[in-house]
Amino acid sequence: MGQMKTPSGHRAPRMGARRIYEALRDQILTRVYGADGLLPSSRALAGELGVSRATVTVAYEQLAAEGFIDIRHGARPRVAEAVVVSKRAGTRARPSPRTVRLSTYGERLRRVAPLSAEQPRKLFADFRYGDLSPSDFPVLGWRKAVVAAIARRPERLAYDNPCGSRRLRTALQGYLWRSRTVRCEVDQIIVVNGSQQGLDLCARLLLDPGHRFVMEDPGYLMARHVFSATGAAVVPIPADGDGLDTERLANTEARLAYVTPSHQFPLGGVMPIGRRHQLLAWARKFDAYVIEDDYDSEYRYDTKPVPPLYALEASERVIYLGTVSKTLSPTLRIGYLVVPSELQSVFAAAKQIMDRHTPLVEQEALATMLETGAYDSHVRRARRRNGARRQALLDALRRRFGDRVQIEGAAAGLHVVVWFPDMPQATEAALIEAARAKGVGIHPVSQLFDQRHPGRQHRPNFVGLVMGYAALEARQIERGCQLLAQAVDQLRSLR
Amino acid sequence: MGQMKTPSGHRAPRMGARRIYEALRDQILTRVYGADGLLPSSRALAGELGVSRATVTVAYEQLAAEGFIDIRHGARPRVAEAVVVSKRAGTRARPSPRTVRLSTYGERLRRVAPLSAEQPRKLFADFRYGDLSPSDFPVLGWRKAVVAAIARRPERLAYDNPCGSRRLRTALQGYLWRSRTVRCEVDQIIVVNGSQQGLDLCARLLLDPGHRFVMEDPGYLMARHVFSATGAAVVPIPADGDGLDTERLANTEARLAYVTPSHQFPLGGVMPIGRRHQLLAWARKFDAYVIEDDYDSEYRYDTKPVPPLYALEASERVIYLGTVSKTLSPTLRIGYLVVPSELQSVFAAAKQIMDRHTPLVEQEALATMLETGAYDSHVRRARRRNGARRQALLDALRRRFGDRVQIEGAAAGLHVVVWFPDMPQATEAALIEAARAKGVGIHPVSQLFDQRHPGRQHRPNFVGLVMGYAALEARQIERGCQLLAQAVDQLRSLR
Repeated sequence: MGQMKTPSGHRAPRMGARRIYEALRDQILTRVYGADGLLPSSRALAGELGVSRATVTVAYEQLAAEGFIDIRHGARPRVAEAVVVSKRAGTRARPSPRTVRLSTYGERLRRVAPLSAEQPRKLFADFRYGDLSPSDFPVLGWRKAVVAAIARRPERLAYDNPCGSRRLRTALQGYLWRSRTVRCEVDQIIVVNGSQQGLDLCARLLLDPGHRFVMEDPGYLMARHVFSATGAAVVPIPADGDGLDTERLANTEARLAYVTPSHQFPLGGVMPIGRRHQLLAWARKFDAYVIEDDYDSEYRYDTKPVPPLYALEASERVIYLGTVSKTLSPTLRIGYLVVPSELQSVFAAAKQIMDRHTPLVEQEALATMLETGAYDSHVRRARRRNGARRQALLDALRRRFGDRVQIEGAAAGLHVVVWFPDMPQATEAALIEAARAKGVGIHPVSQLFDQRHPGRQHRPNFVGLVMGYAALEARQIERGCQLLAQAVDQLRSLR
Repeated sequence: MGQMKTPSGHRAPRMGARRIYEALRDQILTRVYGADGLLPSSRALAGELGVSRATVTVAYEQLAAEGFIDIRHGARPRVAEAVVVSKRAGTRARPSPRTVRLSTYGERLRRVAPLSAEQPRKLFADFRYGDLSPSDFPVLGWRKAVVAAIARRPERLAYDNPCGSRRLRTALQGYLWRSRTVRCEVDQIIVVNGSQQGLDLCARLLLDPGHRFVMEDPGYLMARHVFSATGAAVVPIPADGDGLDTERLANTEARLAYVTPSHQFPLGGVMPIGRRHQLLAWARKFDAYVIEDDYDSEYRYDTKPVPPLYALEASERVIYLGTVSKTLSPTLRIGYLVVPSELQSVFAAAKQIMDRHTPLVEQEALATMLETGAYDSHVRRARRRNGARRQALLDALRRRFGDRVQIEGAAAGLHVVVWFPDMPQATEAALIEAARAKGVGIHPVSQLFDQRHPGRQHRPNFVGLVMGYAALEARQIERGCQLLAQAVDQLRSLR
């Protein structure tokens, strides 16, 4: 019985009853013991191994407790009959090569949602959208709130309400009203693990294979994936500078529509009131739900926030989705749904069966931040800092590219869309490569269009980039744009 | 425009541009403005409201930005045509009474998984299983680990690996080996939000409507619910003092089996090696997966931990499921799956689409606890404390009931099963009620049997209770048993 090693290369603890037990078990399973199945007496084995007899006895008793061996007083232990039989059976019938048998959902998932490749992070400036700067995170305030939450001593540690902590939902109710003019009951709020889980809840509870759902085109890929994974069919409707083109939606039968009316992702348009009414009229006509993803409504630089669809529709057809991923951190995984009352109980049941509830300490910490006003102060500070980053980006783009680029969607959010009318779509891959070689990460709009309709009229045939800036410092933004301009010039000179 | 109140009863902020904007918007939507749609000039409205003209202008510009009104220089603002039209359309066609249209999954969920009613917590001693005592939680160690995790400054705050933090998975790999003799690669580990999410992942990826799955009977309700919700059919197989009766499984075709071989829930049996081999042979024969829920393996009082099925099967057919809900707290929502390599990528894709990943701070905190040995020390301490509680319960039961009860499953875990052979099943509801009246919460085994097979041979026709003790202090356990004995006597005297 030689030294064993753990998989990570550390030495296992020194020889003891467990090591002996393990070695004997392996030997039994590999049929080291002959036809009689007799193991050495505890005395003999103790002598052989240089350990106490008591140590061997513990190992033997464990093997007996698990049914590997039979022990009778005064006799040598013997391999149990069941083990002998099953090992014989095992050797007779070699298992056939394994096929992976997945559910229909599992098979579909392999097709529709390939795991997004992890980005190499060693870039000087990565304009990837969705990331935030750690320097903006309110470390002190969050730590204080978390420490207070950990110190809380409830009567017992037990599963909590699947809809979320009542304290957090009450705080969110007030926040939604004062910041977004959304009025709702506490019971309509369901705390989820980030907006992605909110979308997954909607997908599971509202879509069946064969149903249709409406997506903005271009639009948010992870929403399309989670809805497509149900087996429902996507109906892409073009989005323009005013968000989803509701004229083109009018006669489209579907079960739900996913929209970002406050700041269309990625183009950045704000849906005007006329389209909002058309969208809600469509939902009434087809008895459909509208999922309103208010993902970055806190960031609005030129004007006040636009009130959500939810505030217009008296909550009957609209499921509102909010998140702290763009204000605190995407790694916290806290979001919230506001659902029509008629859906409340089934959403609660689904959340419970999916993962019981969202982790409690974070919920309590966020409640504290909301109650004390620390969250609102933080949002103002983050808005100021991201406003400065946005200005740095707009300035740098103007300086490096002048009129050769068109900038869209800059009034709000944490990204802009930059179009390069003199760079044909065909040059996109080369531009990404050239920028990456200079240490700059860029991300094309083209990936966010529905790939199955590549010839659609509304899709530009030149390069467009979604440029997120919230994770970058001003110097990275400036130098990043300079390097990007060099990459563009390099490509132009080759043509 | 009278004072508005927030839903929670606080006064809204004092009158400003937003309040004016909101009031005008409500008026526009309720068609206060006449056929011409003209609003007052900014000068006139400012005079009327006693605010500056600039304040009114901000409100008007916001309304214009959102498409509610048109502004032309020198003229009074006018309600936009789109709003007028859509409101007219809205009044003509009253929406019909709303029907809730759910997916098949949603409809099924309403049937199979009614939301578990929240327990009233005002009992002197509630023997509910699954709760822990806050006095056992390692507040200092966890706080230290969490504070360190919050202070970490990655390059950017970005979505993490859907399978979980590599640091935590590496720490879990070592833990699984040293504590459970489970050998696996880091990539086979998927960190989930508690074991319930692990079960949901298995349900979605492995079961379709019409498939069959095997459950222990009696068994864990939340597992049965999550599998049933897929539309697959449960095949209940009796469990006895040795766990699942694998003889009765032999010719049962199914896609998966859910088992708790280390400590059958609720009966407490440890599955002997013979049955383990039969179970694995069954899985090979039917090309099925075995989900091994190792939910409380840390608590074993008389003997060493039993190595999991996973350690026997070289990981081909077994999905191993672990959790910290029984060692740290059920409110943290951290668990982990070890999946066969062939399933790794589809589980990762599903986890990503479900909620991106498990919250990062807790993952890092748990990794720290595992790396420093603080977790192992905590587990030893918790085992000691729960061992004392168990002894208190066994002593109290013996003292109060003597030979009139039979105790099962006491060698491990955080609960025992107590049978009352002289209390017919029909008295169960009255006993629960009588105990509750005395401030004692008791929970019958009968609820954990498959309800659709009430006449099954293996099901006792007398009262059995699942008595969890991990959330109670010794004095609660002792007095709770005394009160329970009084309730039993009370019922006996009535018969």
